[in-house]
Parts: sequence; structure tokens; C-alpha cells
Amino acid sequence: MDEAAARSEIRRFLAEDVGRGDITTELTVPTGRPGTARIEAREGCVVAGIEVARWCFEELEGDLEWRPEVVDGDELRAPGILTRLSTDLGSILTIERTALNLLGRMSAIATQARRYVAAVAATPARIVDTRKTTPGLRMFERYAVRVGGASNHRFGLDDGILIKDNHIAAAGGVSEAVRRARAGAPHGLKVEVEVTDLAQLDEALSAGADAVLLDNMDVRTTTEAVQQAGGKVLLESSGGITLENVGAYAETGVDLISVGALTHSVRTIDVALELE
Amino acid sequence: MDEAAARSEIRRFLAEDVGRGDITTELTVPTGRPGTARIEAREGCVVAGIEVARWCFEELEGDLEWRPEVVDGDELRAPGILTRLSTDLGSILTIERTALNLLGRMSAIATQARRYVAAVAATPARIVDTRKTTPGLRMFERYAVRVGGASNHRFGLDDGILIKDNHIAAAGGVSEAVRRARAGAPHGLKVEVEVTDLAQLDEALSAGADAVLLDNMDVRTTTEAVQQAGGKVLLESSGGITLENVGAYAETGVDLISVGALTHSVRTIDVALELE
Amino acid sequence: MDEAAARSEIRRFLAEDVGRGDITTELTVPTGRPGTARIEAREGCVVAGIEVARWCFEELEGDLEWRPEVVDGDELRAPGILTRLSTDLGSILTIERTALNLLGRMSAIATQARRYVAAVAATPARIVDTRKTTPGLRMFERYAVRVGGASNHRFGLDDGILIKDNHIAAAGGVSEAVRRARAGAPHGLKVEVEVTDLAQLDEALSAGADAVLLDNMDVRTTTEAVQQAGGKVLLESSGGITLENVGAYAETGVDLISVGALTHSVRTIDVALELE
Amino acid sequence: MDEAAARSEIRRFLAEDVGRGDITTELTVPTGRPGTARIEAREGCVVAGIEVARWCFEELEGDLEWRPEVVDGDELRAPGILTRLSTDLGSILTIERTALNLLGRMSAIATQARRYVAAVAATPARIVDTRKTTPGLRMFERYAVRVGGASNHRFGLDDGILIKDNHIAAAGGVSEAVRRARAGAPHGLKVEVEVTDLAQLDEALSAGADAVLLDNMDVRTTTEAVQQAGGKVLLESSGGITLENVGAYAETGVDLISVGALTHSVRTIDVALELE
Amino acid sequence: MDEAAARSEIRRFLAEDVGRGDITTELTVPTGRPGTARIEAREGCVVAGIEVARWCFEELEGDLEWRPEVVDGDELRAPGILTRLSTDLGSILTIERTALNLLGRMSAIATQARRYVAAVAATPARIVDTRKTTPGLRMFERYAVRVGGASNHRFGLDDGILIKDNHIAAAGGVSEAVRRARAGAPHGLKVEVEVTDLAQLDEALSAGADAVLLDNMDVRTTTEAVQQAGGKVLLESSGGITLENVGAYAETGVDLISVGALTHSVRTIDVALELE
Amino acid sequence: MDEAAARSEIRRFLAEDVGRGDITTELTVPTGRPGTARIEAREGCVVAGIEVARWCFEELEGDLEWRPEVVDGDELRAPGILTRLSTDLGSILTIERTALNLLGRMSAIATQARRYVAAVAATPARIVDTRKTTPGLRMFERYAVRVGGASNHRFGLDDGILIKDNHIAAAGGVSEAVRRARAGAPHGLKVEVEVTDLAQLDEALSAGADAVLLDNMDVRTTTEAVQQAGGKVLLESSGGITLENVGAYAETGVDLISVGALTHSVRTIDVALELE
Repeated sequence: MDEAAARSEIRRFLAEDVGRGDITTELTVPTGRPGTARIEAREGCVVAGIEVARWCFEELEGDLEWRPEVVDGDELRAPGILTRLSTDLGSILTIERTALNLLGRMSAIATQARRYVAAVAATPARIVDTRKTTPGLRMFERYAVRVGGASNHRFGLDDGILIKDNHIAAAGGVSEAVRRARAGAPHGLKVEVEVTDLAQLDEALSAGADAVLLDNMDVRTTTEAVQQAGGKVLLESSGGITLENVGAYAETGVDLISVGALTHSVRTIDVALELE
Repeated sequence: MDEAAARSEIRRFLAEDVGRGDITTELTVPTGRPGTARIEAREGCVVAGIEVARWCFEELEGDLEWRPEVVDGDELRAPGILTRLSTDLGSILTIERTALNLLGRMSAIATQARRYVAAVAATPARIVDTRKTTPGLRMFERYAVRVGGASNHRFGLDDGILIKDNHIAAAGGVSEAVRRARAGAPHGLKVEVEVTDLAQLDEALSAGADAVLLDNMDVRTTTEAVQQAGGKVLLESSGGITLENVGAYAETGVDLISVGALTHSVRTIDVALELE
Repeated sequence: MDEAAARSEIRRFLAEDVGRGDITTELTVPTGRPGTARIEAREGCVVAGIEVARWCFEELEGDLEWRPEVVDGDELRAPGILTRLSTDLGSILTIERTALNLLGRMSAIATQARRYVAAVAATPARIVDTRKTTPGLRMFERYAVRVGGASNHRFGLDDGILIKDNHIAAAGGVSEAVRRARAGAPHGLKVEVEVTDLAQLDEALSAGADAVLLDNMDVRTTTEAVQQAGGKVLLESSGGITLENVGAYAETGVDLISVGALTHSVRTIDVALELE
Repeated sequence: MDEAAARSEIRRFLAEDVGRGDITTELTVPTGRPGTARIEAREGCVVAGIEVARWCFEELEGDLEWRPEVVDGDELRAPGILTRLSTDLGSILTIERTALNLLGRMSAIATQARRYVAAVAATPARIVDTRKTTPGLRMFERYAVRVGGASNHRFGLDDGILIKDNHIAAAGGVSEAVRRARAGAPHGLKVEVEVTDLAQLDEALSAGADAVLLDNMDVRTTTEAVQQAGGKVLLESSGGITLENVGAYAETGVDLISVGALTHSVRTIDVALELE
Repeated sequence: MDEAAARSEIRRFLAEDVGRGDITTELTVPTGRPGTARIEAREGCVVAGIEVARWCFEELEGDLEWRPEVVDGDELRAPGILTRLSTDLGSILTIERTALNLLGRMSAIATQARRYVAAVAATPARIVDTRKTTPGLRMFERYAVRVGGASNHRFGLDDGILIKDNHIAAAGGVSEAVRRARAGAPHGLKVEVEVTDLAQLDEALSAGADAVLLDNMDVRTTTEAVQQAGGKVLLESSGGITLENVGAYAETGVDLISVGALTHSVRTIDVALELE
Repeated sequence: MDEAAARSEIRRFLAEDVGRGDITTELTVPTGRPGTARIEAREGCVVAGIEVARWCFEELEGDLEWRPEVVDGDELRAPGILTRLSTDLGSILTIERTALNLLGRMSAIATQARRYVAAVAATPARIVDTRKTTPGLRMFERYAVRVGGASNHRFGLDDGILIKDNHIAAAGGVSEAVRRARAGAPHGLKVEVEVTDLAQLDEALSAGADAVLLDNMDVRTTTEAVQQAGGKVLLESSGGITLENVGAYAETGVDLISVGALTHSVRTIDVALELE
């Protein structure tokens, strides 16, 4: 994760929460008093966002002493301490909520990703995320996906080519859509196309696609698709993937399995800050 | 929701996803071709974000014809159509994901809020949100909370006073913390203080707090707290509230019940865009 | 005052004055030559803005040695030294005007506020400012008001509720306006309403207002209003307050007296920078 | 005044005052209700800022009908109407304060400038402003100076050369400072130098200055300076100029008289908005 | 080219040139006078930037009538008219220079690109640009390259993988560098690696690179490289390419030829604006 | 050059090239590995931009050790080392292209300027630049012009007055245009006017212009113009100036010679970075 970019976003998050100032803290906590606190997880998780939390606390005044007990990617049993920190007491209280909101969300994503990765561990398939991220948080959520052991798909619409059903309809068919993409794409980008059945897969193979996304295809058809492709293109299963069926998909031999639920439906991990 | 502020955020969300341009659409969809699509929900929900979605589609070139079939707050059975739209086909495909990400998330929050509100409908208690929102999305999430029928707590640290346990510890007690806040607060803000037991509640009442947050207090103690307060302050239950127990809390007579899960753990509503 | 926010504004002020560079200094002052100067007041004042001035001088290159002889809130007789400073000579000359413009204005506000506070010192009434501040400078001007010993009203339209005559007219009366505000306001905000006579005051009391602004009410009527309110709400006198009559208003027993002239009509304090 | 730049500043001013939204108006004024109001001056003035006020009201939603009764530069007796306006009622109430704060301040500056200009009307001397403007408002204040009939000095440090006492000290004398400036200045800029006595004036003339600022020089010495200069350079009187003595300075024959009080000490004009 | 992004940059370019306002035009040209002008090329060129120029003129006030006589990509003999325009006369004079600076530069790039493309027209080789663009202008320069008929390489460091000599050195060899990139790259990106001799090419082929850049390789060795690669990867010639030798490189059978001189050394096309 | 402003632009340039991150370097270069490199020129040049390049490398993480072997303005024979640097290896590779693009361009401008200055060295004429700079780079290009020994014209439209043919046409003649400018210009700015023949020059002299630009005037007529002006105004030759004829123009006695080719047609200097 690009630290400068992340810090810039963190400043926006703090501005959202702090606004013109933390009135309560200004009124009740003496200026300049030092404080020490710990951040702990109240449920088991794969930790993600320890550095992000540190960057939060570095935004306000006061030197920060940061003594993490874990690194991103560690699995933590509950209750478990993520870090201790010492700095200006008022700053701790002002930053707390924003840091915890990020930590809880990022750890939830990493935890979920780790589950999916574990479910396909016996196969070479890679779990990848989708663009179903929370608007404005893609940088953080993609990072958490990687912490969990999964891989990232393209970042956005500009650094990868994925021809979907609507593009195919607009272009007049799989072959024509792939042909246009191959003709005009920067030479460093592969051409991936989404298909819904084996006939379309055949068309995609003939048209020279580099990768094919098998959209909402059941496991049996996916197995046939793998045979049909014969290793000539990357195959990605997508749609309707759950923790229950992801193993079966992986065993078909597809290269990639994309899972929107990694990021679009996150039950936050319960993390809290306690003064010591 | 402030339309200008929301549009400004939407531009940032689109920049995140579109970056330097939607290569796939540029390569496969002819420029200037008109398109018509519908957005539909594939599961029942309370709709929130119809206008937000429209603002998304208005960001790119092409006049937009927007024909919504619902308004925010409507309950929709699945499958149900939220809106139809006509504009430049390429723009539809470029904007689609960002609009759906917002719609799915906001509708999920409104749906959840509606459930909590229904569970306390027989009482005068108000369901309120917390600051456990997704960083950067508070404006949108608070709006969805209201669409669901619940109320908003303060927006951030600068437009409300809430003295929490750590402030109390720093100030040296409930009384002193409340005294400081009353002395220095702008006269238009109430002073709310968090207490964990009835002794602290007593102290808060004596110190002149305007509102008291009962932190993680069980239903029985909450009932005693309501009696003890005797209507002299606003009482807010917070911590450990679930759909199962929220009714019992409401029946104790508290004025407010705050629920972090309205925003911190959202399972997105499945919404999709189909070309027609 | 939020230091980071203030520094950000200071950078804008310097950009306004310095533009593409201080040509005169570049042409006449050798690069890298150190300089020492003092800032002095040429008339008596309550000093406000010493730190703000320091932040100005810290914006340009060159380590700054800052040796203040006063702190904000000190009363200074003329001629009196506010601070000495040593840094790059050219930077001193480039920054000088912006720093003095802020110091002169802020000290003028603090000086004026101190006069009003002194005039009501024998009463419990608090002097408060208004939103009649200089556009873009509210953060600095409100701070200077506090330095002078007065209090701040709400910062802006979003962190306090004040129902004025035009709102009342639009809502159809004091009662209805207060009712709407109480129903929809975040529970941490008090509802203040402006009234022009005792009948409206009565209506405001019945409707459950938390505070009442007595608009342009003479001293005798104000005395009656205090009796009528009987301590049940906060009372604020506003409009037509001068140094001459503020004491009489304070003696009526109102809680707050707001004075637009604290900020809307400022005769700058004459401060100057001299090289040593 | 550059309209686009002014509108950009106005957005900042409104953001300062409105923040996350005008709660009171949202709660008490029905959405979408039209309103009509007039802005009136409650004391005589030279009007400045009519267009600026219009730009303010154009920032919020709702078509604006603007029916001004004066143009900038008109002299208005009190009470006098500046303009009528019709638009969304809520928007009127939200914008009102910012628009009035600008109008009151700008009109005060124009009124003061007009007084100084009138006092020297019998002579060819021009009244000019200084850099003693309110930080962040220079564009607006310089415009108001022109509306009042006076002229602007350089905008900032980058579009004019003015060698002051501290530059002279750093350079080692008037001659050397002027020499350096002439050697390095872009050829389109004149070289102006500040002098405090006739010996320095002599030095400035010999060194080839294009203009000379006579700093805090009394009227008699100024008369001698005019003779000494013999029309070869522009002469500017500065320092200690008041409405009482400005006429005497003008009669000495100086070309320019700069007056800091035009902008640094402004008693706002009382303007108000009334719903009709 | 993304119109919104381009317009945003154009505003920055105008701010650079216009600053606080076009004094000369304000002083000499009456406000509100309409004007008509033509933009003409005084030397033959491939036109690029007609729309960009229009966007420039649309930035200032005054409705714009724009009557272009060419479209981007047209070859124009000198003297030739690019467009006629009618709008506020003062605005024409203020915008003129910025619009011409862009037009002249972009047309120069398109003209140069067209020459290289023509020189390889008999072969399937594509001419591509490099990252040797003018800082801040990449969007405009890449567009002009396409107008000239050449293709774009990756936009920046984030949307394509190109392993260069220094990366190879850091990774410890071609094989290891390619291996790392293949393991970690998003699956939609090809892995391109730079080699300087046939041994490295062999290594790149074995390691599974998708594309290979032949760095400063002479024509004879390039011919051998093409044979060695046998169509299994994309081959790109780069370094030392001139109009004289580009045809010979193209005939070797490489797929791509990148030319830094398309953008890093541009002799502007002489375009001028004449009032009519 | 204003360092803070330059650094701000450099951040934009890096954002353009690096975008969401340098994928190749992230994938192939181990994090935290130190590196040392040298920047060398592969052709003779006047160096400009050494500090600018340093600022580039200071933008990314990692302490920078910078050991320049030249300063701006030095003439370097090829191959020659400009600087050595040590910092994080990955950062070196990420920054390299942006730094070299700036260095190559700035050095090219300084080199060209030096040639023109040398060609007029026997005369008092000054070579000056024009507004024909690359949009967005004026600050850097003007600096390079000065490094080469030439002088800068006005920065933009707001810090100098230059009445051109179109202004004259709009005003109705040279006299009227000059009169208007003299009447309204800030007193610190000279009035320069462009003329195309001796009759217009005569008119300009009578109207009181401070400087006259002789537009596309041949050498013989320029000689007459110098005599006609008799030293009363600054004379600037402009248009059609080349390295071949610039000396002849200088010998006519004009004060200034402006050369658009200093900046509008730059063949970049070949600079490269080599790891050591």
C-alpha cells in the first residue's frame, strides 16, 4: 500500500470525524497530558491495518511511541493485544474511533480472505477480489485482501481489460469484442472476457482471448470448461462462490476464483482501545 | 444529505474506479451509442440511494433520462426494479459498478435500520446510529439510517459532547468531567456523559448532565436507571444491542438506543444493472 | 485553535501576498543572510496571535528562533515588545506583512472583547460573539474572542440550532418552529429561538425551547423577560449592545450577551516589525 | 474582479459558515418553498459588493431572481434598498449571513475610500491602498477600493517592486538597493524605493529609481521633496495620513497618497435582509 | 482523452499564464465587445488539439462560436486555417497564448508520429511512445501520438510491467526478475522484460515473459532475436531509433518500435491567431 | 525558483507517472534495499535542474544522500557526471524517469539560452524569454533561461503590461491604447507596446510608452528605430530571431531581444541514470 496515498486518505477520514475539533476532549482532558493505551481484539481474527492505525495516531500532535505485538497477517486469538501506544492523551481519544473503524474493517476482510484461501489450499487456484469494494476504500481493502493471502484483480477500469456481457452485447458478440480489444489495447495488458457457457468459451478461445471469466457457471460445466480450454488461457470462476463451494470450484482446475463477498459484506472485527 | 457535498464525494469514488479511463468500454463500445438499462434488486430491501445513483450517472457525458420506480424508503420485494435509465451506453457501463456499490450498501443499512425501528415501534424509544461508520462514507451512511427510520447521533467530534469513560478517567471522575464540559461548552450543546453503573448515573445527575449514555448495562439495571433518572435527563442505551434484545431495552423507557451494527457490519443488498 | 487547520489557512494567506515570489527581497537581500527582528505594539492592547505569527514565520525556509515576551491574553502597554525572532533575513521581510496583519487584527478583537467582559464583570453574564465575522477568518477571530475572555457562540450553521425571525415566519409561528426543531434535532443540540417580545417568549417557554434570544429588546423589557423565564431556559440578549449599555443588560440577569461588534468592526492594533 | 476566482472564494466562505448543513433551516423551513427578500442598508454608504452578494446566493440550489436597485459605486442614503431577490426560501436563510458580511465590509471600504478621494479632488493626487488588507480578502478589498474611486497599489510581493527600509539596510544603502533592483528586475516593472528624508531622496534620484515613497514625511518636507524631484519620478506619500491631513499632502504635488486605513480598520456598514 | 481531466489541466495552465488577471486586456479592450478570429498554421502539419483549443476558449466568459475547418489527424498545408471562433474579444486575447502553446506542441507530436508511422507502413510493426514525455502533459502528448497514428505504451508505472536493466540487477538476473513478476502481478498484466543481448532473450523466453524489449540492439541482432523468439512473445525495439533506421528495424519483424523522440524533443508547429 | 512551489509541482509530476504505484519495482526489487546511482549527461550541455532532480528523489521514502559534481550553470562535456545519489533502491528506480525528464528539458533550455547570450556578448543587449513556454512548466523553464544567462520577460498576463497588435486594434490605435494603459495601470508597472513600423514607433513615443516591442522588424529598420527612439524608451526586438541573426540585432543597439525558441522548441539533453 502506498504510504503517502494512505496517509492522505487518513487525513480525510479524520477530517470527517473530527471536523472543527474534538470538543469533548478539549473540554475534559488537560492539554499536554501523556497517555498510554492498548488496542485489543475481542474476537479472533487475521490482523490487517496495524500500520494504518499507526499512521492515524501520527496525524495529531504529540510524539508517538508505538509498540505493536503483531504484524499484519498474524492470526490472533481473542482477547489479544494488537499494539500499545503512548502519546498525548487527548490525541489518543480523538483518533481512537477512526483508527478502530479502519482496523476492524480491514481485519475482517483479511480474516475472510484467509478462510477462502484455506479452503482452496490443496489446489493451485488463487482467490482474487473484485471491484465490489466500499467506495473510497479500495486501496485499504485490496491491501487487506493480500494480507489474508488472496490476490488482487485489476485496481480499476484503467489497468486491466475485462469484457463483460454488456460489452459483448454492445460489440455484437464475443469474437468482435475480443478482436477490438486486441487491436487497440496497450500491448502490456491481457484481454479477459466473460462468458456464460461453453459455446462462448469456444468463441473466446478462437478469438485469442488471454483469459476467460466463467460467469455463474456451475461446477460441472466449469470442469468441462477447463478441459475445453486446455491450458491455453487463464480461467477465472466468478459469481455465486461461497465458502462451502469454493473448494469444489478450485478442484476443477480453474486458475482464479473471484469472490465479491471478500469486500462487499464485511462484519467488522470487534477491536477496542483501553487506556492503561 | 447535502447534494453538492455528495456529488463531490461521488466524483472521488468514480476517480478511484475509473482512473485514467475505462479501457474495456473505450475499446469495445462505439462512442455515442445510446443505451437503456434497469437497476433491479435481487433481494427484498428498504431502498436507499436512488438519488445518489442518479448523481453517479450524471457525472459522465451524455444526457441522462432517469425513470425511478421507487423512492428512498420504499420496501421492495425481490426481484424488483429500482429505476430505468437511458444515456450514453459507454457511460452506463463505466458508472455501473460505483453506483451499485453505493446503492447496495446504503440499502443494506436502511433495511437493517428499519428492522430495529420496527422492533421498538411500540415504544417511544428512538434508534440512533454511532460513529462506527465506514471512514469517508459517514454522510451516505447517516442518510441511509434516516431513510430506514432511525435517527442520527452527532455527526462527529465537533457537533456534540459525549464524555466517555476515558474522558472521565482523564478528568478524575464523572462530576469533574461534567463540570468542565458545562463550564466551557458552547451554550447550544447539551452535555452527555457515559456511565457504567447506577452510582455513576447518580453522579451524572447531580453534576447537571443533560443526557446520560448507559454503557453495556443489562436490561434490569437499565430499568432501575430509568426510575432513578426520573425523566430529568435523556437516557441512551448503548453496547450489546441486538435485534433480539432491542425491544426489551426499549420497554425500559430509555429515550434512545444506539446501534453500531447499523453501519459497521453491513451485508450488501444484491443489486444489478441490466441492459434492455 | 486547531494548529493544523490554522497553518493551512496561513499558507493560503501567504500565497495571496507572496504570489510567485517576493521580487524586491530577492533582488536586494543576499540569500542566506541571517536576521533578527522584534515585533512591537505601538498602542496598548490585549495580545492575541503570538503563536499564529510564529506559524507564519515557520512557513518559509530558515530555522526560526522565536523569543516571545508575552503570551496571548497579556495586556501590553505601548510601546511594548511582543516577541523577538531570528531566521533568514529575506524570509523575515517576506512574511512580515501577513504576520502583522493577523496580529493587529486578532489583538484588536481580543482588546475589544476584554473591554466588554470587564464591563459585565460584576455579573454572571457571559459575553459571546456572533457569526458576523470576516469571511474566511472565523477560526482566528473566535480564538481572539476567547483570548479576550469572552465566549463563542456556535461555530456555524451546523453545530447549533438558532431559530430566527425568518425561520419562525416560514414555520408559521414560534411554537411550530420549536416543535419541529425538537422533533428532528440530534439529541445533543439545544433548541434556541429568537423572540422580539414577551408574548413570543411565553410561547417559546411553552413550546419547550432550551434557550431564548431576546432580539433588540430594551433593558426594561429584558428585566421582565428574565422574571418571566424564571430560570427555566438560557436567556441571550442580542442587538444594539454597546460598551455603554452592556452593563445594564448584564444586570438584568440574562445569561448571555452577544456582541457583533467584537468582530465586524475592528480598528486594527498598530504592530510593527523592526530589524535589530 | 475575476469572477471565477471570487466565486471560488465564496464557496470557501460558505463552507466555513454552513459546514455540514444549516440544521435550523432544514428543521424549520419546508423544502422547496419559494421566498422573496430585500437587502437594505441601514446607514448611508457607497455600495460595493452587489455582484458578490449575487454570487453568494447563486451557490445554493434554486433559481435566483435578482433585482438590484443600485450598482456598485452608487451612494445610498439610509434606509435604502440594495436589491430584491427571489429563490428557494431555505437557501436565502442559509446564505444570508455570508452575503451580508461581505456586503457590509466591502461597502465600508468603498465608503471610506470615497471620503479620501473627495478630500483630494481638487488636486491630481491619487489615493492608493496598501497591503494592510485582511488576510484572504485582498481581491475583494482592492475591488472595493476601486469602487470608492481610489487606485490599487501592487497586488502582492510579486507584481511590483518596493524597496523598504529593511531592504535598504540589508543591501547597504539606497543606491546599492536601487542598483540591484534595476539590474535584476523584469524590464516591465518600475523600481520604487522608500525614503525617510531628503538626503535619501537625493540618493534615490541619482540611483535611477522610477518612483519614491516618502515614508512618514511631514507636509513641509514633502513640499521640498516635490521640488527636489522636479517631476523626474513618481512620488508617493505614505504613513500617518488621515482624512484631516490628506488634503494638505495632496496639495504638495505628490502623485500618490497611500492609506492603510482604507482596509485595515473597517467599521462595517449595517446591511440587513428582510423577507417580504 | 478524458475531457473532464483535460479541462481540469487546462484550468491550471490558464491560471499559470493569467494569474490574477490579464491587465493589458483589461486596460485596453472594452468589456463585452465581441470578436472573431481565426487560428492558422504557418507550416504544414498533422493537426492535433483542435478540441483542446476549444476547451481553452470555453474557460472564460462569453459564449463561444467555434467553426473548425479541420479535425484532429488532418494533414494541413501551410498556410492553413484550423478554426474560426467568435466570442468576447477580451477573452480571445487572454486565452490565445495558452491555446496556441498546446496546439503547436500537440500538432508537432502528431506530425512527428505520422512520419514514423509512414516509415514503417509496409510492415506490421507498430510505433509506440515512451514515458519520456513532458512532466504534467502526458495525457495530451499520448493523445497526440495516437492522432499521428502511433500507439501508446503503458500510461505510467502502475498500469504495465516493464522490467528494466536496473530491476534485473536488483533481482539478480532476468529469470528471477521475470519469475517474481509472474508470481505477484495482477493476472491481467503481461510481463515485459528488457534484454540487451540474445543470451538474455533466451533467458527471458525460458522464464515465461510475455513480451521482450530489445534495448539498443542493432538491426542484425534484432533479426536474430526475431528468429529466436519464434513468435512466442511480443518483441519491442527501443533505443537509438531514428526516422532513418526505423524502417530497417520494422522489417526485422519486431512487433513494436518505441521512439522517445516522439515526445521528448519537439519543435513546435508555428500556429497563430489573427483577429478578423 | 520558489522551492515550495516547485516541490508541489514535482509531486504532481510523480503522481502522473507513478499513479497507484510502481508495480514493476514492487514486484522485482526487495523492499528496503539501499542503492547508489549516478546521473550522467551523454552530450555536452549547460546543466540546469540539479536541485530540481534532488527534490524529486526526496519525495519518496528513504533518506537521500546527494553528492552533486556540478551546480546549475556549469558547462559539462560529455560524458559527464551530474551527481551521485544513495537512497532506497526501489525509490531510485521509481523516481528516475521524472527526474531525468526534467533535467533533460531544463538543461536543453539553459544550453540554448547560453548560445544566444554568447552570440550577443559583445553588446549590452539582453536575451529574454517569451510566454511560449510549455503549459504547466513555466516556473521551471524560466529558471532554466536564467541559468543559461538570459533574462525573463513578465511571468504572465498579470505582472506586466504588453500591448500587442490585437489590443491596439481593439483600442483604436497605438496612442489610445497607451493612453488607457497609462491611466489605469498600477503605478509600479511600465507600459510596453508592440509596433510594426516606424510610424507606430513614433506614435508610441509621443503617447508616453515606457518600452516598445519591435515586432518582426528587419535589422535595418531596427537600426532606424533605435535612432528614432533616442534612448527615451526601452526597445525590444521580437520575432524571427535566430542564432544566426541575433548578433546583428544586438548590434543595432536595442535593449532586449526576445526569443520564443528558448522554450517552445527544445531538443532534450540525453541524461541517464546508472546504478553503481
